Amino acid sequence: MRRTACGRKECAANHHRRTDGRDAELSCRGDPVARARAKKRCRRPQARLPAGFRDYVGSEIRRRRQILQVVAEVFEGFGFDPLETPAIEYLDALGKFLPDVDRPNAGVFAWKEDETWLSLRYDMTAPLARYFAQHRAVLPSPFRRYTFGSVWRNEKPGPGRFRQFTQCDADTVGSGSPAADAEMIALATRILEEIGIRRGGYMVKLNNRKLLDGLLLKIGMPRFAEDPSDEAQRSTVLRAIDKLERLGSQGVRALLGPGRRDESGDFTAGAGLAIDQIDTIMAFLDVTGGGDDVLRDLEVLVAGSDAGAEGLAETEAVMELVRVQGVGPDRCVIDTTVVRGLGYYTGPVFEAELINSEDCEVPRVGSVAGGGRYDGLVQRFTGQRVPATGISLGVDRLLAAELEGQAATESTRGPVVVTIMDRHRLGDYQAMVTELRNADICAELFLGNARNFGRQLKYADARRCSLAVIQGENELRNGTVMIKDLQLGARISATATAAEWKRRAWQQEIPRDRLVAVTRKLLAGQSG
Amino acid sequence: MRRTACGRKECAANHHRRTDGRDAELSCRGDPVARARAKKRCRRPQARLPAGFRDYVGSEIRRRRQILQVVAEVFEGFGFDPLETPAIEYLDALGKFLPDVDRPNAGVFAWKEDETWLSLRYDMTAPLARYFAQHRAVLPSPFRRYTFGSVWRNEKPGPGRFRQFTQCDADTVGSGSPAADAEMIALATRILEEIGIRRGGYMVKLNNRKLLDGLLLKIGMPRFAEDPSDEAQRSTVLRAIDKLERLGSQGVRALLGPGRRDESGDFTAGAGLAIDQIDTIMAFLDVTGGGDDVLRDLEVLVAGSDAGAEGLAETEAVMELVRVQGVGPDRCVIDTTVVRGLGYYTGPVFEAELINSEDCEVPRVGSVAGGGRYDGLVQRFTGQRVPATGISLGVDRLLAAELEGQAATESTRGPVVVTIMDRHRLGDYQAMVTELRNADICAELFLGNARNFGRQLKYADARRCSLAVIQGENELRNGTVMIKDLQLGARISATATAAEWKRRAWQQEIPRDRLVAVTRKLLAGQSG
Repeated sequence: MRRTACGRKECAANHHRRTDGRDAELSCRGDPVARARAKKRCRRPQARLPAGFRDYVGSEIRRRRQILQVVAEVFEGFGFDPLETPAIEYLDALGKFLPDVDRPNAGVFAWKEDETWLSLRYDMTAPLARYFAQHRAVLPSPFRRYTFGSVWRNEKPGPGRFRQFTQCDADTVGSGSPAADAEMIALATRILEEIGIRRGGYMVKLNNRKLLDGLLLKIGMPRFAEDPSDEAQRSTVLRAIDKLERLGSQGVRALLGPGRRDESGDFTAGAGLAIDQIDTIMAFLDVTGGGDDVLRDLEVLVAGSDAGAEGLAETEAVMELVRVQGVGPDRCVIDTTVVRGLGYYTGPVFEAELINSEDCEVPRVGSVAGGGRYDGLVQRFTGQRVPATGISLGVDRLLAAELEGQAATESTRGPVVVTIMDRHRLGDYQAMVTELRNADICAELFLGNARNFGRQLKYADARRCSLAVIQGENELRNGTVMIKDLQLGARISATATAAEWKRRAWQQEIPRDRLVAVTRKLLAGQSG
Repeated sequence: MRRTACGRKECAANHHRRTDGRDAELSCRGDPVARARAKKRCRRPQARLPAGFRDYVGSEIRRRRQILQVVAEVFEGFGFDPLETPAIEYLDALGKFLPDVDRPNAGVFAWKEDETWLSLRYDMTAPLARYFAQHRAVLPSPFRRYTFGSVWRNEKPGPGRFRQFTQCDADTVGSGSPAADAEMIALATRILEEIGIRRGGYMVKLNNRKLLDGLLLKIGMPRFAEDPSDEAQRSTVLRAIDKLERLGSQGVRALLGPGRRDESGDFTAGAGLAIDQIDTIMAFLDVTGGGDDVLRDLEVLVAGSDAGAEGLAETEAVMELVRVQGVGPDRCVIDTTVVRGLGYYTGPVFEAELINSEDCEVPRVGSVAGGGRYDGLVQRFTGQRVPATGISLGVDRLLAAELEGQAATESTRGPVVVTIMDRHRLGDYQAMVTELRNADICAELFLGNARNFGRQLKYADARRCSLAVIQGENELRNGTVMIKDLQLGARISATATAAEWKRRAWQQEIPRDRLVAVTRKLLAGQSG
């Protein structure tokens, strides 16, 4: 890396790559004066976010709130009660990522605190299992809760992949009924449609971990339960299947067999299966659809094991219970390629995908909701098996899908701005603002440098303000105020002739005591 | 620590103190069989939260949402736009807590990630300064934003003191006007009243850091700006003043002088001031009220320094601009004991306290909102002074104040429960639930073990369900369903005679196709 005397620009650029003071100083070599000056500047922190994090503003926040409101209403309508757990938990309570290395950064944000590991939650299901295990003696059974909140993943960020995102979950703990699983799918369809995604714009894909287990048994891979040492190979198979959409069937075949070298030359070790084993798995992955023929095809492929038979029976029962809720094969199909990344799933798993309006085969932003059954998660704490199933909705992906192709416009109208003509009369202007606010009109005093009146109008423009209120010497003498209609002003300034400009009431002088009444009337007449 | 063969109870108790597997194993000594069995049990994680964190359920969540909604409306009515920043930032961007030791756990949750320190935000102001510095070129000036969210403090937890809590902030960045400060106070009063705290139930207390600076100059302590090495002594004085309410004036005198030994024998070093210096500070701390006499008293105490004069002028201007917004001395007074803990304040500071209804002198839960001016926070990044001021509302404290003395009752009515009489007809029951849900009636299928019908009614009771729907063999044959009014049932079972019990329509058989209509009618007739 080139190291130069640290000019303003170079220093800033370096900072973007290096974040601790010592390195920044190293980059400030050269003549002593420049170096000393630069050193002082370099000590300033850089105003930036860690990779994979982002800020949200105006319209995105408002739309997300709308979505959360709809989701809460649907969740409550389905009989789920709200619960909020903290962002930080003991790492061992969240499970899955154990502190067997010095810094367990595999997937989670975790740190050591007085000899114990704390962690930010990576999903909402693990904290629910902790909550249920802790309070099960006093909770209704089954226990039905929903929750919203941020979760954190310490993963490599990428385009559209963030390390903090919002999840909305609903879960039923203490029910092994396929009706509990089927309900989650109906819930997903209801939410998607209530937030405005039309029927045909999404598809729910159902699979079952037990079908996969049956298949692996059939090709000679015993289940984890029978032989835990084989879990590594099983995971490799699941991870390979999960990559079907991205790598295509040749890529998956390579990962199931000897391994795969990607374009960059990196090699991923494979599961080491034989050709005929791979052929059987690929045939399984071809089974998709909503009809009875799919179940018959699956039967042939996974027959001969308890796991396979259970998986088949559960899949049939869930599909039937989804159907009685009015959700047919146009919205929910069996899809054997659905795996779900998280390790705790034990039975039915599903994903809801948004699909392109033109071509219903091509996913647009991928999965926006997913879930499944995890019968072992509470058992980790209690030793007793507690069946459970749930759904998780990715609100940020939904938002991203909506905003895709749209300019991120902030369409909200700004406040009425009371401008400052005489800086010794702040109190008078502030009183006008208070009158407007007391009448529930969104209003504010211009609080910047008031010396330049143009700057006040520029501010009002930047805020998309609708009206500006002005009271100079003349108006004060007349007992009036001037109201400028900034929207109308902008519109006619683009098109009007000089004569029209004068004629149009884009600004008017009104009696001071009519301020609230006239403002209210003008706002009612304006668009949004 | 005593180490025994690990019986179930002892193991659990140990786990509460120890959280890593190794220590838990050490405690499982004794005979080999018990030890092996215990070892297996001990490997289970404990279902618990770290100290200082808590879960929220039902009614508290709903009330917090109501409060946040009101706060958002008032903030927007005052002309603030929403902004959401992530929970994790670079530690150096948040400032104040620098990684000068191996693990900088002083007040924040922080951890090292690829040679840089990351941290959970400890407030909403530091991230705002980062955001403004990063995007200042394209933001309106002044920049007005509000935000909600969790913040985290790595402090010793105590009763009512949590390590994660919700803050609602509004800030104006880029305005040095006292009108910007005064607006924050009016905002605080408006919010408190709109969420239901009556006038007289709260008080806003205003102070100014420059008044304190003037006082310290007068007694011979140069400001930090003149002599940074004296900052330690100045901080000790500020911290001592901050403890007036808890320790009383004798405690504060000790902390200003030689130091203080508390009941437990712990010694806190003092500021080492002389008696006459301490007398002057204590006289300053006696000045409180909303009248002009207070300003005259202050003038005598802090006169003779620029800082003191500025502090006086600002305090007078803010009080006047608060008054023109309709907030008089019954709601906002000058109180020289208000310090505010955070180090970045530079000018006006204020706190809103809830006060007892009987005795208006005694604070009930202390400060529920506070804020002030921090003109140096953006400068950390840019080198240029950007004046700013803001308010922060502690929603959890408000909630706690409301719930104090009330039983935490969950008054919300539960869903209509469709019970299961015949486990082979799940689909029929699920279809009833779907009909009800499609009519926007909150409903669910009983998803637990259906073998025992009593358990289904017990579940409905635990969920405070209003109605239960039943269809057994007889009803199926008749083409009907039975609807039980569980609320009425509970009420009359407590008081009714046998004759009344039979007469009252607490359960009725209705035609199957009238399910939605009758349910809707019954719900409309019920309370709650």
